[in-house]
This record gives sequence, C-alpha cells and structure tokens, in this order.
Amino acid sequence: SRSIRLAVIPGDGIGQEVVAQGLKVLSAALPQDVKLETQSYDLGARRWHATGETLPDADLESLKHHDAILLGAIGDPSVPSGVLERGLLLKLRFAFDHYVNLRPSRLFPNTPSPLAGRPDIDFVVVREGTEGPYVGNGGSLRTGTPAEIANEVSVNTAYGVERVVRDAYERANARPRKKLTLVHKNNVLVHAGHLWKNVFDRVGQEYPEVTTDYLHVDAATIFFVTQPERFDVIVTDNLFGDILTDLAAAVTGGIGLAASGNINPSGAFPSMFEPVHGSAPDIAGTGKADPTATVLSVALLLSHLGYRDEAARIEAAVAEDLAERDAAAPRTTDEIGDALAARVSG
Amino acid sequence: SRSIRLAVIPGDGIGQEVVAQGLKVLSAALPQDVKLETQSYDLGARRWHATGETLPDADLESLKHHDAILLGAIGDPSVPSGVLERGLLLKLRFAFDHYVNLRPSRLFPNTPSPLAGRPDIDFVVVREGTEGPYVGNGGSLRTGTPAEIANEVSVNTAYGVERVVRDAYERANARPRKKLTLVHKNNVLVHAGHLWKNVFDRVGQEYPEVTTDYLHVDAATIFFVTQPERFDVIVTDNLFGDILTDLAAAVTGGIGLAASGNINPSGAFPSMFEPVHGSAPDIAGTGKADPTATVLSVALLLSHLGYRDEAARIEAAVAEDLAERDAAAPRTTDEIGDALAARVSG
Ligand SMILES: CC(C)[C@H](C(=O)O)[C@@H](O)C(=O)O
Ligand SMILES: CC(C)[C@H](C(=O)O)[C@@H](O)C(=O)O
Repeated sequence: SRSIRLAVIPGDGIGQEVVAQGLKVLSAALPQDVKLETQSYDLGARRWHATGETLPDADLESLKHHDAILLGAIGDPSVPSGVLERGLLLKLRFAFDHYVNLRPSRLFPNTPSPLAGRPDIDFVVVREGTEGPYVGNGGSLRTGTPAEIANEVSVNTAYGVERVVRDAYERANARPRKKLTLVHKNNVLVHAGHLWKNVFDRVGQEYPEVTTDYLHVDAATIFFVTQPERFDVIVTDNLFGDILTDLAAAVTGGIGLAASGNINPSGAFPSMFEPVHGSAPDIAGTGKADPTATVLSVALLLSHLGYRDEAARIEAAVAEDLAERDAAAPRTTDEIGDALAARVSG
Repeated sequence: SRSIRLAVIPGDGIGQEVVAQGLKVLSAALPQDVKLETQSYDLGARRWHATGETLPDADLESLKHHDAILLGAIGDPSVPSGVLERGLLLKLRFAFDHYVNLRPSRLFPNTPSPLAGRPDIDFVVVREGTEGPYVGNGGSLRTGTPAEIANEVSVNTAYGVERVVRDAYERANARPRKKLTLVHKNNVLVHAGHLWKNVFDRVGQEYPEVTTDYLHVDAATIFFVTQPERFDVIVTDNLFGDILTDLAAAVTGGIGLAASGNINPSGAFPSMFEPVHGSAPDIAGTGKADPTATVLSVALLLSHLGYRDEAARIEAAVAEDLAERDAAAPRTTDEIGDALAARVSG
C-alpha cells in the first residue's frame, strides 16, 4: 500500500491556520489506500524565542526523511528581520537544493482583480531558488558608523542557471502555447545577465518548438499590468522572481491565492510547498486568513508526488469555490477549508 | 540677463523625436529675457558604430560646462546589451554623481490606467543613482564554459545612503502628506538592508513631522497595483527604484508620460533630465512616440534650475492636454509637441 510521509512546518502567524486547512483538503483528496503520515516541526518565532534556534541540524536531518514538506509561513515582528528568513526558510531552500521555485499565476473567474478589463492570465514563473543575491555572500565594514560599507554579492553559475532554465523549457514545451520568457537585467548586470542569456539561448536550441522572448525586469513589470496574457512560462533569477511573483499574485486576486513549490527535481531531498504570502501577524487569530493559497500549494505537492488526478481535483474545487464566492459574505479560514474539503471528497 | 546653457543628448530611436518636442516646449516656456544656449552631443548607437566610442573623455569634460543636460533615450538592438547603458547612460549618472534619481508618478484625469477604479495616484520615487548593483563591480570566470561563475556586487555606503535618504526626507517634509516609505529587501539582503534601515531611522529623527513606513520590495509591488494612493514619497535603492518606477509609470498611463531627473543636488555637476522610457526602435520614425514624458522632464529641469513658475506652467499644460486627449484620434509626436508649446506660451 502507498504512503506519503509529510513533514509539516506550520510556522508563524496565520501559517498555523492555513496549514490546518491544507491538511484537511489533502486528507479529503487522497485515495483511501494512501496512508498519510505527518510529522509536525515546531520551527519559527516561538522556537527562536524559547531556544535561540532557527533550524538545528537535528531537525534538518530529520526533515530529510520525508517525501515532501508543507510549510505555512515564517516571520514575526518580534524577531529581527532576516533571522528567520535566512536561518530557517532560505536555509531549507538551500540545504535541500530547491532550485526550481515554481509559482503559477492564474486569474480565476469571479476573482477580484485590480486590473481593468480582467485580462486572461495563466502563466507560471520558474524562479531560480539557490543562487543570485539570495546566497548570503555579503557583509559590512565599520557597521553602524558614517564610514560603513555594506555589500551583497549575487552569485550565478552556469551549472545553476542551466538546470533551472532547462526545467523551464521542459515546462514550456509541455504547455499548449509553448512560450518561454527570460527576465533579467542584462543591460546593467552584464556579467550575470550575459550568463543567463547565453545559457538560455544555448539550451533553447534543444527546444525548437518553444518560442522565446527576453525582457528586462523593469519592462516585465509593465507587461504584468498592461498585457499579462502575453506570458506563458517565465524563467528568472531568485530576486527578480521574488518581486515578479508578488506582483503576479496581486494581479490574479492577491496573495491569498498564490501557491508555490520549492522543488528539487532530482528527488535527492524533499521538495517544499508553501503559500507565497507571509505570516500576516495583523490578521492571525481572526479567522480572516484565506487558506486557498495553501490548498493550491497542496495541489502542487500532490502533482509533484505523482498524484495528478488528486491535484487536478483540488484545483477544480478551488475554481468552483472561487466562482461562487460572495465578497459581501466572507467566510472564515475554517469555513473555506471545509468547503474545499467537501468539494474535493464529494 | 539670464541664460541657460543646455547640453542635449538626443540619443537613439525615438530619443531624437521626443527631444525636439521637449526643446520646443522649453523655448515656449522660458521668459523672453532668458537666453537658451543649446549644444547637441552626438552620442549613442550611431557614434558607437562609427567610432567605437560611447562617451569619450572630451565629451564628458565638455558636458560639465553646462547648467543641465536633456537626454532622449539610449540603446539600439544593433549594439550589444550593456555597451551603451554602461558606457554612456550610467557613465554619465556616475561621473556627474547623480545620486538623486527623481521619478514622480501622477495619474492625470482622463489618462487611461490599467487599474480598475482609477485610484488617486500622486507619489514620487527618490531612487538612489550612484550605488547598489549598478556600480559595475562584478565579473565572470571561465566565461562561456559549463564551469562559468558570474558575480554582481551591490555596493552600499552610509555616505551614499544618507545623502539620498536625507534628500527624500526633505522632499517628504515639503509635501502636504509628509509621508516617506523606505523600500528594500532587508529580510534577505541583510547587510545592505540593515544599513538602509538604520540610516533611514536615524535621519528620520531629524524630521519628526514625517510619517515613515518600511516595505519589502516584493510587497511594494503589490501595493503599487492594489493601493497606490498610500504612497507619498518613496526612497529606495538603484535597482529596486528602476523596477518600481517602470511599474509606477505603467499604472499612471504608461512610460509615455513618465519623467525623470538625475540630480546632483550639490550643483558640482550638471543634472540630467530624461524620460523613463527607452529608445523604442520599433516605433522610431513613425511619429507615434509620445513626447509628453520628455516635456515633463523639461519641467523637472526648469524646476531644478529655479524656474518654478515656468515648470508649473508646463505641468498645467500637460494636464490640460491629457484631459482633452481622445484615444480615437491619436496625434503625432510633433502635433502633441505643438499643442503643448501653444498651451505653454498661450
Ligand atoms: C520571506 C522571504 C525570505 C521570501 C523570499 O524573499 O523568497 C518570500 O518573499 C517569498 O517570496 O517566498
Ligand atoms: C537603460 C537602463 C540602464 C536604465 C536603468 O536601468 O536605470 C533605465 O531602465 C532607466 O530606468 O533609466
């Protein structure tokens, strides 16, 4: 009989609340014969305050022995900025070599959009997850004095760029429109930019059916709001991907709906699935958090583990639920989770 | 009698066309007793193809002896990406220490906006112009091979950050809402981010009337499309400012309207004014280029040189012209320039 060993990191703020709904929908979606074993990890602000630890080696080691990780959200105003992000969230992405940070964006019918004219939006951003300015290569001198200098180094390797670019071509090739856009800033960041562009062009020769395109990151943001329908698959660096996917979420109904997967395609380490939103301490405990982004992240998780029909059922349930949402009658986190679970099992 | 010694760099593509209209409106706006002396510099793609030069020392030296520079646009597909940007445009910004890159955004009445609900947008981005990942500190090893590594270094100094942050506080303090938002990514780029945040907080103590706010750059893009009315003055780093100001232009009617000033507040070197848009080779020569961004850049130029009434007249002329624009009856570059010049002198 089949089984899924799932590590769960609820994290901070609304992370706890949305993860509970994600697990509810996951259980509802799984076939009877699949055994779901979950193990919860107490990581985040509470743990850091209690012990000073962000991600101890023992937890990291233990996390390895799972098929996947479901993460809620990390971060709290009581913890200095960067401590949990670098010490926990990014540490996981780097330690488990999550080089494909997959972030689909789709404007569902009936979902409120800030864009006039409600363009047809259905694209996916393949964000590099293990290089760029996220590597933590930087430092400061004479910190806190008027003579301070602080540097941040963006590191890009042909090895790292090629594997994510190849993954993006594969995804583009498997989609009906077969279109791939590289986003960078190669007119200013000439060294990293030329590496990305050269690898992009070279790997592209192996995918003659994929139409390609290049945009500077600044120009890309313009198209996100004026012509988002032009995008199919986008591949980009870690920082540009971070910025673009929040904007993508905003134009497709908000970060309450944006799902993501931090994927290690080789399977050497567990992949990790999480909503794009943060811990939103301002609404934690109010029942206002929308668990949909986490539920859609569960669909990405299932799809990654090979449960494609179950993933599709969750996506369909979300589409149906969104189609019937009434902005005048908001539901609680729990009610939305229940409704989605009911649709998935029903 | 008064005079303005203006250096003009029309540059590439539509740069030539929009600069002609900018000069037309400038002449119309200036008081009779002000003598306008212009000197045109042949810099850009044509010059590079002819001589291999981007910005020779002699031109740089000669440019210094002007009160201001008006620039059209730089860049052409026939020139490798980065050559003109780094060798000419950024070289000017760095050589003339243009540390305040000023980019106002305002949604004029009747201007088409991609945002539903047409929010009230009126903010200004103060983008740092001489540091960050734009400094050109980077390089690659084993270039073009599968073992390539390409780095880009973002350099940030307390000296550089403080002067631009102080300028932004001054601007915020002079505006009715007195609100200043710092945008960075201090949860990931911890060294640069902490420097920015510390300087921002410290300088803020001198401006008790200014309300302050901090946003990560990814979150800022969300607010640009969902709540742009929340912004008054934004201060940010060179790269984040580049990205945010294109997005700001997009939500306020497009880059055809977005003006900018590369300002050296000390006056040691001439400041440079340019539309945010590029050379748009696809529409060069068609008469479709909108010169309004350049005309508004001329208003920034006049304001910088102390001709505030004349600047206000140009801004009013643009507002009136936009209010009467008819999307069904587009005018040529020249017609728009004529209409604006007529309003300004009339
Ligand atoms: C919390 C932060 C470190 C993270 C990132 O920058 O990657 C978040 O913004 C995201 O997009 O997942
Ligand atoms: C052309 C390019 C170098 C420039 C920049 O990145 O600053 C442009 O995008 C701008 O915003 O003025």
